[in-house]
Amino acid sequence: MENSIFELQYALDTFYFLVSGALVMWMAAGFAMLESGLVRSKNTTEILTKNILTYAIACTMYLIVGYDLMYGGGIFLDGLAADGVTGAEDPATYSPSSDFFFQAVFVAATMSIVSGAVAERMKLWTFAAFAVVMTAFIYPMEGSWTWGGNDVFGMYNLGDLGFLDFAGSGIVHMAGAAAALAGVLLLGARKGKYGPNGQINPIPGANLPLATLGTFILWMGWFGFNGGSVLATASVESANAVANVYLNTNAAAAGGVIAALIVAKLMFGKADLTMILNGALAGLVAITAGPDTPSPLMATIIGAIGGIIVVFSIIFLDKVKIDDPVGAISVHGTAGLWGLLAVPLTNSDASFSGQLIGAATIFVWVFVVSLIVWGILKAVMGIRVSEEEEYEGVDYVECGMEAYPEFTNTGK
Amino acid sequence: MENSIFELQYALDTFYFLVSGALVMWMAAGFAMLESGLVRSKNTTEILTKNILTYAIACTMYLIVGYDLMYGGGIFLDGLAADGVTGAEDPATYSPSSDFFFQAVFVAATMSIVSGAVAERMKLWTFAAFAVVMTAFIYPMEGSWTWGGNDVFGMYNLGDLGFLDFAGSGIVHMAGAAAALAGVLLLGARKGKYGPNGQINPIPGANLPLATLGTFILWMGWFGFNGGSVLATASVESANAVANVYLNTNAAAAGGVIAALIVAKLMFGKADLTMILNGALAGLVAITAGPDTPSPLMATIIGAIGGIIVVFSIIFLDKVKIDDPVGAISVHGTAGLWGLLAVPLTNSDASFSGQLIGAATIFVWVFVVSLIVWGILKAVMGIRVSEEEEYEGVDYVECGMEAYPEFTNTGK
Amino acid sequence: MENSIFELQYALDTFYFLVSGALVMWMAAGFAMLESGLVRSKNTTEILTKNILTYAIACTMYLIVGYDLMYGGGIFLDGLAADGVTGAEDPATYSPSSDFFFQAVFVAATMSIVSGAVAERMKLWTFAAFAVVMTAFIYPMEGSWTWGGNDVFGMYNLGDLGFLDFAGSGIVHMAGAAAALAGVLLLGARKGKYGPNGQINPIPGANLPLATLGTFILWMGWFGFNGGSVLATASVESANAVANVYLNTNAAAAGGVIAALIVAKLMFGKADLTMILNGALAGLVAITAGPDTPSPLMATIIGAIGGIIVVFSIIFLDKVKIDDPVGAISVHGTAGLWGLLAVPLTNSDASFSGQLIGAATIFVWVFVVSLIVWGILKAVMGIRVSEEEEYEGVDYVECGMEAYPEFTNTGK
Repeated sequence: MENSIFELQYALDTFYFLVSGALVMWMAAGFAMLESGLVRSKNTTEILTKNILTYAIACTMYLIVGYDLMYGGGIFLDGLAADGVTGAEDPATYSPSSDFFFQAVFVAATMSIVSGAVAERMKLWTFAAFAVVMTAFIYPMEGSWTWGGNDVFGMYNLGDLGFLDFAGSGIVHMAGAAAALAGVLLLGARKGKYGPNGQINPIPGANLPLATLGTFILWMGWFGFNGGSVLATASVESANAVANVYLNTNAAAAGGVIAALIVAKLMFGKADLTMILNGALAGLVAITAGPDTPSPLMATIIGAIGGIIVVFSIIFLDKVKIDDPVGAISVHGTAGLWGLLAVPLTNSDASFSGQLIGAATIFVWVFVVSLIVWGILKAVMGIRVSEEEEYEGVDYVECGMEAYPEFTNTGK
Repeated sequence: MENSIFELQYALDTFYFLVSGALVMWMAAGFAMLESGLVRSKNTTEILTKNILTYAIACTMYLIVGYDLMYGGGIFLDGLAADGVTGAEDPATYSPSSDFFFQAVFVAATMSIVSGAVAERMKLWTFAAFAVVMTAFIYPMEGSWTWGGNDVFGMYNLGDLGFLDFAGSGIVHMAGAAAALAGVLLLGARKGKYGPNGQINPIPGANLPLATLGTFILWMGWFGFNGGSVLATASVESANAVANVYLNTNAAAAGGVIAALIVAKLMFGKADLTMILNGALAGLVAITAGPDTPSPLMATIIGAIGGIIVVFSIIFLDKVKIDDPVGAISVHGTAGLWGLLAVPLTNSDASFSGQLIGAATIFVWVFVVSLIVWGILKAVMGIRVSEEEEYEGVDYVECGMEAYPEFTNTGK
Repeated sequence: MENSIFELQYALDTFYFLVSGALVMWMAAGFAMLESGLVRSKNTTEILTKNILTYAIACTMYLIVGYDLMYGGGIFLDGLAADGVTGAEDPATYSPSSDFFFQAVFVAATMSIVSGAVAERMKLWTFAAFAVVMTAFIYPMEGSWTWGGNDVFGMYNLGDLGFLDFAGSGIVHMAGAAAALAGVLLLGARKGKYGPNGQINPIPGANLPLATLGTFILWMGWFGFNGGSVLATASVESANAVANVYLNTNAAAAGGVIAALIVAKLMFGKADLTMILNGALAGLVAITAGPDTPSPLMATIIGAIGGIIVVFSIIFLDKVKIDDPVGAISVHGTAGLWGLLAVPLTNSDASFSGQLIGAATIFVWVFVVSLIVWGILKAVMGIRVSEEEEYEGVDYVECGMEAYPEFTNTGK
């Protein structure tokens, strides 16, 4: 037998990265289904287009410039995949290509968060242009300060300050929410969402089974997202860590479901399914910053608090007329911040001050740069479809086809 | 290299459990899609809510009390996930957290079976209360007598009697069906299902692509369900066993599809898609009790018989006015019983008498206790929505929102 | 510890095959969703039925005769699954059952390609009969000349001529397209597709979220399809190969999306979602013949060219009145041919002449035999539903039920 223990360890860790990465890739389908279920039928083709395009742009831009910016190593120039074991680590304990694949699908998740918040009124090509900048520059820069280990503009090092974000409650989720918030502020609310006398008009999603499917897909994909972030599995210690992460990720989502159900029932008198779905996702976002250290009961509680927070956050954003059709800013931003702050409760390697400084750094960077980029795009290309196009639905003007040509019975 | 062969074996078995568990978790999405596709649109939001809630309740209750009741070991008290290798086995050959995760998602599957059978007329909160009792007590008790190895009330030991249920045709599927049957008997049929002169009115499901998707999801998830039940994969013997289980699971489902198609064509003159979907699932349920010993051709036959049985079972239940909107009692109960009885055909470790005693034990326990619990809930909370609410659809009264607000063209 | 390094290698390779196979099985759901989203609602139940039936027939026929014809070894007679390590290889380095499972799900993919192209007008039972012949005979024969290594009718050996088709751009995808083309030529176009004065009438699909979901499912499943085709992962070399394959598969699909979007925008002025979905799939098909050797940037380009080609191929087929409702012939045939021709660009083991001879061999064999089989079926059973049945939709006549009984608002 020519295989050594090293070869098997290398092979198992590589396979684990690839399975994890495939699960994170699958989250792109989850975002697509969630968002297309929560918008109106007249804007469904376009949100589907945005979601698949976002994923494609993210993978391509991260390949060309993003990974190099975040981790160095010159993937693109050195022809990583053709050579095999030529990555940054020496000796590598897993295939560099598998690591790149895993990192690349994370970028796509970050950008997918944005598309939901700006749904039903943003121009498709403006969105695509933003996606290029986000995945090639904005995300890799903050990624280089966190997972990449670089100093923030040479000034301070987040790791040294006690910042810890295991799988990206802040680095991925809050970052996506910050970019989304900047876009929504420049974009404005959908026509008819907020009435002249302060009333808030619900705009129901067209297809709740799709939204539920999307949530289940994201839940499943999150096992790869968090579980893969242990970055190794081929030892007793790392295998135990991965198993705890799976268990806690699942427990937090379950806690988010139950908490959001109870809060919704108490506040609205109904088992509000969209709040329950957002509760599940908020639980997942909340545990993402530290799924390795809590007990499963503690993970359930962290997720449950995420599920409570998200309901109030959604209500609050509507009060201040920040129109987010799918609740993405609350799910990924507010629950993401909670997730960061919860880490020091069970992990002494993180400090509250470090978490706050890290959260502020990520938020300020992503929000400010996104605001500038959205602003430039608004000036150059325009950011919002015309009032008539919004009334008719963005599907026809942007994509030339309806999502459900035989079904819809309501006027546009 | 500090990794030993033991470490790699531990890591591979743990990873295998986690991948299997993620696939079983995915079955929750399968049940949600299957059931939401087979009910009418006015009851869709509620069935989606029930499905995600069921999964969350199952994972949480099993964490708090169920696992301990079934296997002992004090998961909750000892803080399993925080400690790592502190499980019941000594020395553990895989992460106890991974085993817990795998077991927990099984509980959810058991309870998911119930939601379909009681669809379109049960109160949401009564269902949720039953789910708590089922996942915390009813299932773990029968699980402790079977997979847990305990004597049944100190009286007899099913394993000693030759009872063998590899991955749960009886322990999971027939148990779910027994609880469902008890609920349906107390609940009664949907209004309009059975006419005054003995006619049976078909009530078509609103979305067959969803039902088909749900079936495919369940089929895929079943690889984790049955494949993971080998409980190890890191040796030639166990790897071969897992591979045979995958192959036979797939073959049985294929057999179920073909058999149900032929029977439906012969009986109704049409390729009845809902029967075909139930045939696939019945094939899967049937092979679950013993997917390790048959040849793939024998597995195809076992699945095909499951696919035949399920069609007749569905027709029979309708004749006796037991109204099961998705066919769950036939798929999981009747085919589950067949699966148990088929084990001795290819596995001499099981006996027909043992299988019958085991099936009777599971059925009587789950059915009787469920009947009591449903009965108490009926007296305390009520079990059925009002006639007007049923006519309007349970979505609005329970969840406050329609699943497809822009699509439906039929009166309620 | 009694596990040896050999046992672990065997177990890891087996598990890798099983996970890959489960992902390929999942592609059956992808085809079902893609095709059911792209047909009209009145033909949806039937296409769902065809898809699940195709998968079941493929798995069963390949078990009974196909695998033996393609690779020899007498699976069916020797009772593979019951015995374990008794396969062709000696000593086996993975479970023969896992290899069979992986190969069987490939057959199903080949046949799934056909159902989309003949949608909306072919008789269900004629299709089922063809599926039996295709999966038991036509595919295994050409498979025996390529992956099986046999000479083509004892005349020439494709491998010796420099033919290389890593995971089946030709052997699976172009083969499926050739069988589909033969069927479509005998079947004719759907009523109303081509007007008397040369106009081409678009017939929009009923459910674009389903079509998008199907594309994402196929994309995910393709990691198993291509990644599993390395046939081993338990060494540094094979792990690197699998990782490169995952990365390149993903990159090619992303390239296909972006290229198809740009071409569609330039040609039609809109971001045509169905073209984008076909672009993703064409990118995947194109990289399948050689996902192991290109750099990720080169893979992106190969996929992008696939995405460009598919748009022109779809337009061309419509010009010559070959009516393919889902674009399957272009996606799997035209892009498959491109994929074969792209292999020598990055892999010196393949030659252009070898690729051309291989492509011609596969195409001529599958197309001619399929034409004969379709022709016989047309004579014996009829191939097309009546004009009235086509107008009413094939769902009712074949399956006896509507896919969306509460939704459709358009006349049939």
